[in-house]
Amino acid sequence: MEEDIRKLWEEVRELNLGTSTLVERLDSAPSPIDFLRNFVTPNKPCIISNALNHWPALSSWSSDNYLCAALGSSEVSVHLTPNGRADSIVPHPTDPSSLCFASAHVERMPFCDALPLISNPKKSVVAYMQQQNDCFRSEYSPLFSDCDTHIGWASEALGCQPEAVNLWIGNDLSETSFHKDHYENLYAVVSGEKHFILLPPTDVHRLYIHPYPAAQYSYNQDTREFSLELDDPVRCVPWCSVNPHPSQGVEERERNKFPLYFDGPKPFECTVKAGEILYLPSMWFHYVKQSPRTIAVNYWYDMQFDIKYAYFNFLQSLHPSYYYYLRQVIQEADVDVSDSSDNHSPQL
Amino acid sequence: MEEDIRKLWEEVRELNLGTSTLVERLDSAPSPIDFLRNFVTPNKPCIISNALNHWPALSSWSSDNYLCAALGSSEVSVHLTPNGRADSIVPHPTDPSSLCFASAHVERMPFCDALPLISNPKKSVVAYMQQQNDCFRSEYSPLFSDCDTHIGWASEALGCQPEAVNLWIGNDLSETSFHKDHYENLYAVVSGEKHFILLPPTDVHRLYIHPYPAAQYSYNQDTREFSLELDDPVRCVPWCSVNPHPSQGVEERERNKFPLYFDGPKPFECTVKAGEILYLPSMWFHYVKQSPRTIAVNYWYDMQFDIKYAYFNFLQSLHPSYYYYLRQVIQEADVDVSDSSDNHSPQL
Repeated sequence: MEEDIRKLWEEVRELNLGTSTLVERLDSAPSPIDFLRNFVTPNKPCIISNALNHWPALSSWSSDNYLCAALGSSEVSVHLTPNGRADSIVPHPTDPSSLCFASAHVERMPFCDALPLISNPKKSVVAYMQQQNDCFRSEYSPLFSDCDTHIGWASEALGCQPEAVNLWIGNDLSETSFHKDHYENLYAVVSGEKHFILLPPTDVHRLYIHPYPAAQYSYNQDTREFSLELDDPVRCVPWCSVNPHPSQGVEERERNKFPLYFDGPKPFECTVKAGEILYLPSMWFHYVKQSPRTIAVNYWYDMQFDIKYAYFNFLQSLHPSYYYYLRQVIQEADVDVSDSSDNHSPQL
Repeated sequence: MEEDIRKLWEEVRELNLGTSTLVERLDSAPSPIDFLRNFVTPNKPCIISNALNHWPALSSWSSDNYLCAALGSSEVSVHLTPNGRADSIVPHPTDPSSLCFASAHVERMPFCDALPLISNPKKSVVAYMQQQNDCFRSEYSPLFSDCDTHIGWASEALGCQPEAVNLWIGNDLSETSFHKDHYENLYAVVSGEKHFILLPPTDVHRLYIHPYPAAQYSYNQDTREFSLELDDPVRCVPWCSVNPHPSQGVEERERNKFPLYFDGPKPFECTVKAGEILYLPSMWFHYVKQSPRTIAVNYWYDMQFDIKYAYFNFLQSLHPSYYYYLRQVIQEADVDVSDSSDNHSPQL
């Protein structure tokens, strides 16, 4: 089965995605039917240029003054971490030999106090304005008229309006660890640049998704220090184990722990610049970094839970390592096994 | 893995297809984008009424005289078998304990001589006018103007013109055994009725696809007898083993041979009447019967070899019976095997 899964990784690239690790680029907005046929149906990403040229945000949002004037002292939710790694796997607070899934400290503060934390960051506190709860239409609604309320050709293709529209204001100290979303995602960069590493859903075993105990950062404004505490009662979150950019010194250890990621086909990579949209298909794993002071708006549309989703769940349910293990056990025990399955067809 | 595959069968029904075994019906032609989004993308069949009402064929083809006047003595290819089972698994001609894949005897004859073989059949020779080689636009081109050259909304949805358009004139003595095509199929019934049994691609293991030696019927016009001869050199054809309607007396044997088919979720079934179109999605397995004197036209459009196709190939490549067998071997040999795969993640 190991070999069959590797073949799947290759085939989806050869048939559908291309083998170059580059994401296809379109020079202008596609027609709804072309977008649906050529990208949504085959579950294939693309980057679209010149689809946002009419957004006032493209020019006005480069100014902190403009943004502060628009939002003033409105309170927004700012995610604070000591290292820019929210929703990420970090060392366990009490057992240094194990890991946990850490969420950011979320601080409500006036927008005008929050923005300088991102534009002129201090190293000890990394701030990221991002709430994936339709925040652009709620907390940040004064800015909403600077953008389109939806991506017209995508809404027509997908047959619905966005389920959520989120605003992201962050800098190069933050990163978003590998994960997938159950949405079709139109990710528009307004200012700065976003760098994506992408893996198709077929590559699920390469991310080593394991359950990690959930933990929460708390930031003490007086001592200016973070603490990390496990959720009580304990709660486990299945999350991707792989950091594609392991820090110096642990590279070899990480490569040995996650060979399917580091030795398998190269992931897709792309940089989405201001004025461009990334179509990030549902169920694709993505890891994201960004340039200093990057602002983006993403539109989440409901995905179809169709045959592709059923196939994904099936693939993920397989434990090829167990199969591999069974064969090893048999080999070591010197049990005779015919190498053909032809005589065993009545069972699945 | 057995259990995982059974879950896949269930999930694709629960999420995508419905659990009722009925095929969804549309009262009129869908818009191209609705057809693409709601049926092609999720790989889901549907039956469309009132999309052919403007075809002259719907009234004129009920008359044998009309058809004969149009085609006259043009030669057409007629498939002849002793039992209506062309491209089907039948007893091996020399080894009665095994089976082979039999193709029809193909006889070129004037259309006006062929049509009575179908309208007024004799039991000893079953005739079927069907060549899946774009025959409607070649052998039967004089009738082509009675239908649309393509299905407009489907061509727009799929972004191409049909790769092949085929005409089918047959009767209730013929059946088409379970198989799949690598095309998106728009199947328009002009006269009579077609009965389809359908299984989604996820159910591939339920059809017991095995390689069978190819054989060919020959019909001797003088003796009026068929002979069946194996291809020389021997050539093997992978084909579905299951006949969904086993003849009386062998029912129990067939049920025992193919439990995944007979004991799994009920297949989808539908009757497509004159004036209706079945959208038969690419890679769906289908078994077809028909009423006396049935005429249909089908439009084959190129399918996308995308992530769905890659997932299908992966699924088909798995031999769950071998896995099952490994476990049995281990059990019988009384080898100790931990029931967890958690410790074996480095291997696939």
